[in-house]
Amino acid sequence: MCEKRGVPTVDSLVQDSENTVGQKPNEHCAVVGFYGTDGAFDWIYTSLRTLQHRGQESSGISIFDGSRINTVKVMGLVNEGFKSSVENGSIYSKLGGNIGVGHNRYSTAGAKDLSGAGPVTVSSLLGELALSHNGEIVNQVELREELKKKGITFQTQLDTEVLLMVLSREISEKGLKNGFKNAMSLLRGSYSCALIINDKLYAFRDPLGIRPLIFGKVGNNYIVASESSVVDVLGGKIIRDVEPGEVIEFFEGEYKTILNVPSMRTAHCMFEYVYFSRPDSVIDNVEVYNARILMGRQLAKEAPVDADVVVPVPDSGRTQAMGYALELGIEYSEGLFKNRYSERTFIMPTQSLRSNSVKIKLNPIKSAIAGKKVVLIDDSIVRGTTMRYIVSILRSAGAAEIHVRIGSPMIIAPCYLGVDMKTRDQFIALNKSISDINAEIGSNSLAYLSLEGLKESIGLGPKSLCLGCLTGEYPVKIKGEKYTQQTALESY
Amino acid sequence: MCEKRGVPTVDSLVQDSENTVGQKPNEHCAVVGFYGTDGAFDWIYTSLRTLQHRGQESSGISIFDGSRINTVKVMGLVNEGFKSSVENGSIYSKLGGNIGVGHNRYSTAGAKDLSGAGPVTVSSLLGELALSHNGEIVNQVELREELKKKGITFQTQLDTEVLLMVLSREISEKGLKNGFKNAMSLLRGSYSCALIINDKLYAFRDPLGIRPLIFGKVGNNYIVASESSVVDVLGGKIIRDVEPGEVIEFFEGEYKTILNVPSMRTAHCMFEYVYFSRPDSVIDNVEVYNARILMGRQLAKEAPVDADVVVPVPDSGRTQAMGYALELGIEYSEGLFKNRYSERTFIMPTQSLRSNSVKIKLNPIKSAIAGKKVVLIDDSIVRGTTMRYIVSILRSAGAAEIHVRIGSPMIIAPCYLGVDMKTRDQFIALNKSISDINAEIGSNSLAYLSLEGLKESIGLGPKSLCLGCLTGEYPVKIKGEKYTQQTALESY
Amino acid sequence: MCEKRGVPTVDSLVQDSENTVGQKPNEHCAVVGFYGTDGAFDWIYTSLRTLQHRGQESSGISIFDGSRINTVKVMGLVNEGFKSSVENGSIYSKLGGNIGVGHNRYSTAGAKDLSGAGPVTVSSLLGELALSHNGEIVNQVELREELKKKGITFQTQLDTEVLLMVLSREISEKGLKNGFKNAMSLLRGSYSCALIINDKLYAFRDPLGIRPLIFGKVGNNYIVASESSVVDVLGGKIIRDVEPGEVIEFFEGEYKTILNVPSMRTAHCMFEYVYFSRPDSVIDNVEVYNARILMGRQLAKEAPVDADVVVPVPDSGRTQAMGYALELGIEYSEGLFKNRYSERTFIMPTQSLRSNSVKIKLNPIKSAIAGKKVVLIDDSIVRGTTMRYIVSILRSAGAAEIHVRIGSPMIIAPCYLGVDMKTRDQFIALNKSISDINAEIGSNSLAYLSLEGLKESIGLGPKSLCLGCLTGEYPVKIKGEKYTQQTALESY
Amino acid sequence: MCEKRGVPTVDSLVQDSENTVGQKPNEHCAVVGFYGTDGAFDWIYTSLRTLQHRGQESSGISIFDGSRINTVKVMGLVNEGFKSSVENGSIYSKLGGNIGVGHNRYSTAGAKDLSGAGPVTVSSLLGELALSHNGEIVNQVELREELKKKGITFQTQLDTEVLLMVLSREISEKGLKNGFKNAMSLLRGSYSCALIINDKLYAFRDPLGIRPLIFGKVGNNYIVASESSVVDVLGGKIIRDVEPGEVIEFFEGEYKTILNVPSMRTAHCMFEYVYFSRPDSVIDNVEVYNARILMGRQLAKEAPVDADVVVPVPDSGRTQAMGYALELGIEYSEGLFKNRYSERTFIMPTQSLRSNSVKIKLNPIKSAIAGKKVVLIDDSIVRGTTMRYIVSILRSAGAAEIHVRIGSPMIIAPCYLGVDMKTRDQFIALNKSISDINAEIGSNSLAYLSLEGLKESIGLGPKSLCLGCLTGEYPVKIKGEKYTQQTALESY
Repeated sequence: MCEKRGVPTVDSLVQDSENTVGQKPNEHCAVVGFYGTDGAFDWIYTSLRTLQHRGQESSGISIFDGSRINTVKVMGLVNEGFKSSVENGSIYSKLGGNIGVGHNRYSTAGAKDLSGAGPVTVSSLLGELALSHNGEIVNQVELREELKKKGITFQTQLDTEVLLMVLSREISEKGLKNGFKNAMSLLRGSYSCALIINDKLYAFRDPLGIRPLIFGKVGNNYIVASESSVVDVLGGKIIRDVEPGEVIEFFEGEYKTILNVPSMRTAHCMFEYVYFSRPDSVIDNVEVYNARILMGRQLAKEAPVDADVVVPVPDSGRTQAMGYALELGIEYSEGLFKNRYSERTFIMPTQSLRSNSVKIKLNPIKSAIAGKKVVLIDDSIVRGTTMRYIVSILRSAGAAEIHVRIGSPMIIAPCYLGVDMKTRDQFIALNKSISDINAEIGSNSLAYLSLEGLKESIGLGPKSLCLGCLTGEYPVKIKGEKYTQQTALESY
Repeated sequence: MCEKRGVPTVDSLVQDSENTVGQKPNEHCAVVGFYGTDGAFDWIYTSLRTLQHRGQESSGISIFDGSRINTVKVMGLVNEGFKSSVENGSIYSKLGGNIGVGHNRYSTAGAKDLSGAGPVTVSSLLGELALSHNGEIVNQVELREELKKKGITFQTQLDTEVLLMVLSREISEKGLKNGFKNAMSLLRGSYSCALIINDKLYAFRDPLGIRPLIFGKVGNNYIVASESSVVDVLGGKIIRDVEPGEVIEFFEGEYKTILNVPSMRTAHCMFEYVYFSRPDSVIDNVEVYNARILMGRQLAKEAPVDADVVVPVPDSGRTQAMGYALELGIEYSEGLFKNRYSERTFIMPTQSLRSNSVKIKLNPIKSAIAGKKVVLIDDSIVRGTTMRYIVSILRSAGAAEIHVRIGSPMIIAPCYLGVDMKTRDQFIALNKSISDINAEIGSNSLAYLSLEGLKESIGLGPKSLCLGCLTGEYPVKIKGEKYTQQTALESY
Repeated sequence: MCEKRGVPTVDSLVQDSENTVGQKPNEHCAVVGFYGTDGAFDWIYTSLRTLQHRGQESSGISIFDGSRINTVKVMGLVNEGFKSSVENGSIYSKLGGNIGVGHNRYSTAGAKDLSGAGPVTVSSLLGELALSHNGEIVNQVELREELKKKGITFQTQLDTEVLLMVLSREISEKGLKNGFKNAMSLLRGSYSCALIINDKLYAFRDPLGIRPLIFGKVGNNYIVASESSVVDVLGGKIIRDVEPGEVIEFFEGEYKTILNVPSMRTAHCMFEYVYFSRPDSVIDNVEVYNARILMGRQLAKEAPVDADVVVPVPDSGRTQAMGYALELGIEYSEGLFKNRYSERTFIMPTQSLRSNSVKIKLNPIKSAIAGKKVVLIDDSIVRGTTMRYIVSILRSAGAAEIHVRIGSPMIIAPCYLGVDMKTRDQFIALNKSISDINAEIGSNSLAYLSLEGLKESIGLGPKSLCLGCLTGEYPVKIKGEKYTQQTALESY
Repeated sequence: MCEKRGVPTVDSLVQDSENTVGQKPNEHCAVVGFYGTDGAFDWIYTSLRTLQHRGQESSGISIFDGSRINTVKVMGLVNEGFKSSVENGSIYSKLGGNIGVGHNRYSTAGAKDLSGAGPVTVSSLLGELALSHNGEIVNQVELREELKKKGITFQTQLDTEVLLMVLSREISEKGLKNGFKNAMSLLRGSYSCALIINDKLYAFRDPLGIRPLIFGKVGNNYIVASESSVVDVLGGKIIRDVEPGEVIEFFEGEYKTILNVPSMRTAHCMFEYVYFSRPDSVIDNVEVYNARILMGRQLAKEAPVDADVVVPVPDSGRTQAMGYALELGIEYSEGLFKNRYSERTFIMPTQSLRSNSVKIKLNPIKSAIAGKKVVLIDDSIVRGTTMRYIVSILRSAGAAEIHVRIGSPMIIAPCYLGVDMKTRDQFIALNKSISDINAEIGSNSLAYLSLEGLKESIGLGPKSLCLGCLTGEYPVKIKGEKYTQQTALESY
C-alpha cells in the first residue's frame, strides 16, 4: 500500500480529508499502557517512539500521580514534541507517577491540530480516567445520541470519547466486570485499549480482536502495547496477547483477567500483517516478518516470472520481495533508491515541480534496471497512482519488462474498522479486471496474491481474519454492507 | 561506517566536537549551482532536498537577481527550514533570479547554528560573489594569516571564506584564468565548488578531484551538483563530471572550460563509493550501486562463510550485503529492523534509558536470526561501538554464529580532506589485529575487504583514489603525515 | 495594586500558584460574544485585543458555522497567537460563521498551558454549546460532585465546565427560561457570560452583577463584551449593560430579555473601578476614568499633603494621581519612567541581577524628584513589596519627603469572586496599623482612601458594590467567611 | 512624532522601506559596551533591555572569551530572543568572558532578518574585533568603493561594516592613535560606538557628537551606553559623556583618553531630546525630562490657549503636555487611553478592520473630552496621518474645540545622520503653511514650538545642536544639501 505511507502525494492527502466528516476514528494509532514501580514517563515515551510508524500527527501521555491524572499532548513526532520539556526536565514535574497510558495519532485529514490527540481523560463518579484507543467504533453516532439523551455531554468528535463515556457509565452503574461486559455488548467495532481508572490500569480488546494488543514485563513493570516490538526494545519479556474480548487489570504488581467475553471467531485485521505493523512484531502469535516472507514465496508460486531481478517498492514491498526472490532463486535488488528524508510530506514550492515529487522520493538505479526483466513488488495497491508513476520511471531507466506482483489480494471495499480507506471510488481495482489495471499502470503483467494464499501465509485458522476490504463481507454489522453473524455478542 | 550516519549515538556526537577547534571544514556537504532561464529557487531547493543526506545541519541558497546576490539560510532540513517562506510565497520575492548556488551543511560539532551555513558571499572589486563549497582546505590557517597581512579581514572561521578570499583577490589582480590558476596553486586540499560572480556561474574542482562534482542540463537550464542523482531527479540529462582541475564558466546559455590544470593523478575519495553518496549516483563514471555490489561480491570471494543468512546493517550495509549474498547464493534477509523515525538524533530523557538507544533504532527479527549462522555486513567500522552492540542484540535474538564482514578495508588514519574523522584514537582498528577487534566486538569471525579488492570493485585505474584513511599516505601535503609528490601543482 | 500587573516579580508569581489547587477560576478574564451578519472572527479578534489587559495567558474563539461550533485556542497575546493563521488566511476556513464567543484568560499559576483556555464547548442533547465566562463559581466543588452522581463527567478542572454542565442539564430538562432560572439558583458566585447554543447567542450575568458585561451594536452586528471600550473601538453604539440576573437572547437580528431574576441588591466589584478595567470603559453607567479622578480628589480631601509634586506609580496610579494633583493644585509629574517593553514578565538571567528587576521597569527622573516633597500615588497595595522598593529608589533619587497615598482602602480579606487574591497572609495590611505599614515601606507618611470615600467616588447607591476584600463581609455565602442574606436567590 | 513609534501604521511601514535601498544605516540603535571583572553577558543583556526603545528588530551581543570573540544574535525583543538560552543556561557557555559589546537594531524596512543585526565582527591582522554602532556614515558608498580597490571585501550592506573596515585598516597601518585619527578624517557622518579589539574596549564618538554616548562604573565594571539610564538601572555611577571626537580605551581596570579630535562645534541631534531618548536619561549634561517640560512651558508661552484641558498623545507627547499645562495652570488629563499591548505592530486580519487600527491603540475618554476645549499635545509631526485621525476621534468624542500644539518646530528636510526620515515628500509640512496643515488635520488651531524656543528649552549653547531636519542646513557635507564648514576636520 505504498500510496499510503510509502509515497503520500499531495493529492491523496486532499482526497482523504473528505472521508471522515463528523468523525475522527483512531485508525492506525498506537496504544501504550504502563503499570510499574519506575517513573512511567520514560517508558511510555520510548514505547511511543518505537510505535511512531502507527501515527505521526500527535501524541499524548497521561500519568496518574497518586491523586490525579495529568496529561501532556504534543503535535508531530514524539521525539520533537516532547523535546524541550524533556531537555529542561519540566516533563518530570508535570508527569510524575508510575501508572500511565500513551497514544500516537495518525492523521486522516488535512487540518491537523491537538483536538484529536489522545489519550481522552475524564473525571467522573468513578474517579479519574484516561483512555488510549486504537480502532474505530462503528456505531458511535447512535451511541452518542443515546448518551446525550441520558444527559451526557461531549467535548470532541472522537469515537474514543464515546467509548470512554459508555465505559464510565456502565461501570458506574453495574460495577467493573458487568460494566465492561455491558459496554462490550453496546460497542460495535474495533478497540484495543489501555485505560487508567485511578490507581489501576486496564488493557482490553474487542471480542473479535481486530486491532493488536500485547503485554509484557520489564523488571517490575508491566507494559501494554499495540505491538510486541515495544517490549523487545525496552529489553523485556513478552507475556502474551490480550485475548479478544478480554479485560486485564493491573494492580499491586499483579495482573489478572477480570472478564473474558467468548466469541465464535476472531477478526484480526490482515493489513497489520501485510503493511501496518513493524516486521519485528509478533501479533497473535504470528511474526509479521515471517508472514510477509511467506506472502512473497506464495506469490512466487502463484504468479512466477522468469525475470532477471526482483525489485521492491521501498520500504513497503521489501519483505515480500525477499520472499519472492528467494522462492524463485532470482536476484533481489534494491533497484529503487528511497530518499530517507522524504518520510515527511514534502512541500512542493510550485506546480511545475510537483510532478517531480515521486522522483524526489524514489529514483531508479540504472545498473539494476537497464535492459532487465524486472519483477516489481509492493505489499498492496489502493489508488494505483504511485504504482503507475513507478512503472514509468523504471521504463525510463531502461527496464526491458516490468512485471508487477502484489503481496496481497485486490482491495475492493472500504474499511470501517481502523484503516484509512473509507470510500469505494478511491480504489483502482473497483469494477476493473486485472488486465484493465495492468493496462492502467503500464506494466507488462500484473498479479495479486490470492485470498487463500494470503490466509495460508499468515497461517491463522479459518474464521480468524478480518478480510472486509478484500471481500466486502464484514465481521461487524455495518449499514449498507454484507454481514454474517459470527460472534456471540449482540452488538456485532 | 554505521556509527556515523546509520546510528549516531549521543557519545559519538560529543566526541566529534573536539576535532575541529578553530576550523569549520565543509565535510560531507552538498554543492548545487544553477544557471538557466527558469527561476533558480525551485530547482536549487529540489536539488538540495535530493542531496539532504550530505548535510542536515543547515542549508542556504544565494541567487543573483540581476544586480545583487540575495541569500537565505535556514537551520535543519531543507524542507522544514524553507517551509513557511515557500508556503506563503515570500521566498520568491527574496530569491528571484535565474543564477544561483545552494549548500547543505553537515555538522561535525555539537553547537549548531547558522554561522557555519553556506554559501559564503562577499562584495568585492569583482562585484558580487557567492561560493558553495564541499571539501576542506588543508592550509587554511596559513592562507588566512597571509591574507590578513595583506589587509584582508575575516568574519567566520570557515575555510570556505579563505577559499573565497583567495579567489577574489587572485582574480581581481590577475584576471579570471590566471586568477583561478594562481588560486589553485595556493590552495591545498579538497574543493568542489559552485561560484557566482555577478551574472556568471562557475563550477570548479581541485586538481585531484577529491570530492565529486557533475553537471547536466534540464531544458534550458544547467545544473551543477555534488551527485548525478540530482540531474536524474530533476528529469535532466547528465553532461559529464567537472574534471579535476577544471574551471567551467556558464554564461548566456553556454558553458565553456576556461581552465584545466593538468595533474599526474587523481585522488577520488573512496568513501564516496563506500558510504557517502547515494547508490543511484554515478561519480567519475562509476555507478555507486554497482561498485557496492562488487565490493560485496569481492568480500564474499575473499572471506566466504558457509552461513544460513546474510544480514545488512541498515541502511549502510545493504548494497554490499546483497552483493555478498548473491556471490555465495546465501539467503539475503533484512534481519535488523530500522526505525525510520530515528534518522534524527534521539533525545534520551534519562541515563537509565540511554542504553536502549540502539534498540530504538535497530531491533532484530527473530525468525530471521534465531538458530542461524548469520553473516552481518556493514560498509565500514570506525569506532566499533555500535557494531559491538549490534552483535550483542543478534546474540540475544538467538543467532547461532555471527560473522562480521566489512565492505571496505580497516580505517587506521584520519581524513583531512572532507570526512569527519580527524583523530587516530577514535579508531577501533588502531594498533589492533583483526582477531583483537573480533574479540572486542564479540563476533565469531571478522573480515574486511582488502585494499586491492576495494580498488578492483570501484574499478578506477591505479593512482586514481584517495586512500589516506586506509593507508596513512596522503595525496596532499599534511603536517606530520606521509606524502608522495603526485601532482604537477606546487601546492600539493 | 501595582504588584499585580504593574510590576509582577518572580516571587509573586511563585506565591500565586499555590492558591488555586484543584481549581482554575476565570478571574480577571475577558468575555466577548458576537451575533451578526458579518464574519464573526474579525470582530471577536479585535475585541479580544481591546480587552487584552484582562488576560494574557491564552485566548480562544468559538464560532458556529451553521451546523457545528469550531474552536481555536492559542497561547499568549491574541495578536501573536493568531498571527500565522491570520496571515495565511487559514483561520477563516476554520472559523467561518457569524455567531461566536471569545475569551482571554488571565493566569494565576506558574504552569501555563492551553488546558485552561476558554471558551469551553460541549455537544449535548441541546446541540452544540460554547461558553465564555468571567468570574468564579464558589460552590463548584459541591456542584461537580452532585453532577458526577448524575452520570456527568468532566474533562477539565475549570469552574466554567461546571457552569456549562449545570446550564446544559437544567435547560435540557426544564426548557430555556426555567433552565436558566434553576441554574442561577444552583450556581453561587460570579459569572458574566456569553454562550452559544447552536444558532443563538446568550449573554447573562449573575444576579449580583459582580463582574461587568455590556452590549452594543455595530451595523447589523451585536457585540457583547466585558467592557464598553470594545464597542467604542469597533465604532459601534452601546445599548446598555446586561442587568444583574438578566439573560438576553440574540436571534434573527433581534435581542430580547428571556429572564430577569430579581435581586435585593447588586455587588459590583469595586476593583473594576479601582484597577482592572480600562479607564475609557463605562461600567454600570459609571465611567471608570471619572471614578478614578474622583477617588484621587477625595483622597486629596481626606489626606492632603503640602507637597511639591504628585507622582503616580505608572500605569496603575496615574488617573488617581491626576485627581489628587488637581484637587490640591500641586504639580503632577511622571517622575517614574516605566519601560514600555517590560509589560511581559522578565526573565532575569542570574540571581545577582534579579534585584534590579524593578529598576528595569521603573526608574526615577531626577529633576522631578530630587530635593522635593513627593506624593506617591498608587491605586492599591496588596503585598507591599514593590511599593517598598519604589520608595527606596525615590529616596536614592534624592526625594526630600515621600508621602504615599493609596486610591482605595486597605485590602484585608481574600477575594473569592474573581480577583486573584486568595489567601490572607499575602496582605501587607493584615493585622497591621497604618503606621506599621508606613514604617515597613519606608515612607514619611501613608494614607488610604476611606471606604466611604471610595463609595462616593464611584457614586453607586448603597448595597451596590462588592467590598468583600475591604471589609471581610461577602455578598455571597462562602465557607468560613461572614455573609448577610442580601439577595432573593437561595444560592447566595 | 507619534506616527513613528507611538502608532506605526501598516502604510507607514511600507513607505519606509524604499528609503534605504542598498544601505542599512544604524538609525536609532542602542550601543552598549562592557569592560569589567564580572561576566559580561548579564550586564549587557540588562542594558539592552533598558535601551529596548532604541531598537526592537534584532539584538546581538559579542563577548571576548580570552582568545576569541563569540557573538549571538537574535530576532525581536532582547528578553524574548535570549529567552530559551538564558533559561537553560546555554548562553553562559557560549558567551563567557568579561569584555563585550551589545547592540539593539531598529528596523527601517519591511523585510526583517538577522543579516542587519549588530555587532559586526571581523578577524584581521589586529586580532579579533567587534563593533557596535549607532549612527549613519554619509560617505559609506565612496568609502566602500575605495576599500574594494584595495582588496577589501564586504559581506553585508551595513555602513557599520565600512566603518569597521576603515578602522581596522587604518589602525593596522598607522597604529592605534593615528589610525583612529585617520579613520575619523575619512568617515563622514554620525557614529557613537563601542569596539572590542582583543582584550581592550574602546568607546568613541564622531567629532560632532551627533548621537549620544556615555559611560559609568558599577563596582569594578565599566559600562558604556547610548543613554545614561542604563547606568542608573544597573545601580552604578555615571562618569561622563564620551566627548565628541574622543576615543577612550578601557584596559586593566582603568580608562584613558587616547585621542581627542578638536572640533569648532558640536551637532547633538535635537530629536534625542524631543522624542528618542528615555526621559530619565541625561545627554550631554541635559536631562531629557526637564528639556521636554521646558519645551512644553515654552510652547505655552509662545502659543497659549484658553482651554479646559491639556491632553497628550500618549506616550510621545506626555512630558511636553505636562509642561504646557503647568505653565498655563490648565488641567492636565490623559484623555486618550493607550492600549499597552499595542506596542507591537498589529496584524489586521482584513481590510475592513484596518481602519480601526488607530482606535485599537488609542481611544478617547469621554468625560475628559466631551464639551471641552482641548489642547492636544504631541512632540512632533512627520506625516500627519495619525494626528488627523486623532483629531477626528476627539471630535467624535464630543470635543468642543481642538487646538493642536507641537513641542518642536516643523520638520521640513530629511535626516541623513541617524533618524529614519529620508525623503522630503513624506512630510506634511513640505511646502505648506501652518494654516494649510491646520486645515488638513482638522484642528481648530495649530502651533509649533519655535526654533529659538527649542534651543532655549534644551539649553545648550549656539552651534551645539544638529537642526538639519528643521532648517535644511546640515553640519556635515551631504550631496545636494546645504552645508557650512563648521568643523576642523576635513571630512565634514
